[in-house]
Amino acid sequence: MGKVICAGLGPGDPELMSVKSDRVIRAARHLAFFRKKGRAGQARSIVKDMLRDDVVEYPMEYPVTTELRFDSPEYRQLMVDFYAEWADRLADLATREDVVVLCEGDPFFYGSFMHLHTRLQGRAEVEVLPAIPGMVGCWNALDTPFTWGDDVVTVLMGTLPEADLVDHMTRADALVVMKTGRNLPAVKRALAQAGRLDDAWLVEKGTMPGERIVKLAETGEDDCPYFAIVLVHGQGRRPEASE
Amino acid sequence: MGKVICAGLGPGDPELMSVKSDRVIRAARHLAFFRKKGRAGQARSIVKDMLRDDVVEYPMEYPVTTELRFDSPEYRQLMVDFYAEWADRLADLATREDVVVLCEGDPFFYGSFMHLHTRLQGRAEVEVLPAIPGMVGCWNALDTPFTWGDDVVTVLMGTLPEADLVDHMTRADALVVMKTGRNLPAVKRALAQAGRLDDAWLVEKGTMPGERIVKLAETGEDDCPYFAIVLVHGQGRRPEASE
Repeated sequence: MGKVICAGLGPGDPELMSVKSDRVIRAARHLAFFRKKGRAGQARSIVKDMLRDDVVEYPMEYPVTTELRFDSPEYRQLMVDFYAEWADRLADLATREDVVVLCEGDPFFYGSFMHLHTRLQGRAEVEVLPAIPGMVGCWNALDTPFTWGDDVVTVLMGTLPEADLVDHMTRADALVVMKTGRNLPAVKRALAQAGRLDDAWLVEKGTMPGERIVKLAETGEDDCPYFAIVLVHGQGRRPEASE
Repeated sequence: MGKVICAGLGPGDPELMSVKSDRVIRAARHLAFFRKKGRAGQARSIVKDMLRDDVVEYPMEYPVTTELRFDSPEYRQLMVDFYAEWADRLADLATREDVVVLCEGDPFFYGSFMHLHTRLQGRAEVEVLPAIPGMVGCWNALDTPFTWGDDVVTVLMGTLPEADLVDHMTRADALVVMKTGRNLPAVKRALAQAGRLDDAWLVEKGTMPGERIVKLAETGEDDCPYFAIVLVHGQGRRPEASE
């Protein structure tokens, strides 16, 4: 009787994964990971030098990327079937042996594994190993404390309506914006409206080869890297009332 | 010529620190860490089974805890002197050898090391190793995805004015409240006012021996553990506009 172990990989540098994830991945006989069709896969490339010679790999290839609108019924059905099929396969494997599922960043923080986690409940033992979220790797790359004192941090997805972005950006001290990509122009406009654009950094491929750090205000209109996070540091808000 | 290496320890379980922090700590000849007077120190206890026999330890003991109001001029001066003195000592040590400074959680996320980091600039080479923040260890302990879809996450300090807490709690999807302790009654009132109390969890000593997880609504008036985080999960906000 085995179990499904989801190993969080952290921000990208293999040295930044946990001692536990490192050990579990090196010992894995069965290894599953998400990837886009026709790509090596980011998760798989992080662990490339760590695998057993006799590892059996299960690339879980997303059925679509940009061919369908992500809110169309066809897309949703494809994804539902995809996750259901892999939950079946992993649950079946786990009746006999352990299977390790790779997950970039921290699995419970916007991770794709949640779709399998939900479907595996009651069918297989599941263990999730936490990891350094991508945003933590990115603010570490900036080599400056991200938050201190009583700073309020808000994490936003670039896919949110622009008015919502402005609203949150105005209220928080420190900001993280994920899912930037083609939403980056809207994110920039929202930051400018909230008066925070000049303090914003764009970190692409944080902690990984090809890491790039630039002031967001200095990026061009069509500079919308896919794997990038926007960060605005807190300034150390002081409590107004005494403890 | 050495450097000051701040090794993030993660949420508490030694297996959850990064491969890099683990290696650096095991090799450390000089080891500094913060602690309260008369206490072993949380950071030091996490690494207790990892140290070299000939390690030289530098406990950096906070000059005060609760004797003075934290916003009094006397308290501020004591802390300024304390950090200045240790920055001097670490910078001096680093002219000859590496010195490792331990830091619970992630050093750049509300970490005490920032006070040394600022003061060491230009005086010593400083390297900061990121780690899993305490809140990530806590939401992992709840074994449920913390955020998905377009959830907005807000991280709040329990020391904020109650009206500010309510304001942020009403707007965010997922919530983290740190620095709870004696502020917990105010945090509970604010969550109730924002309609989120029934979804809130209290995680004490997440990932550590003595870990305790309870529904916040079911805690008593005087149940205000010091090392605890309040969490409210996101529900997977769906984007209103298409990508």
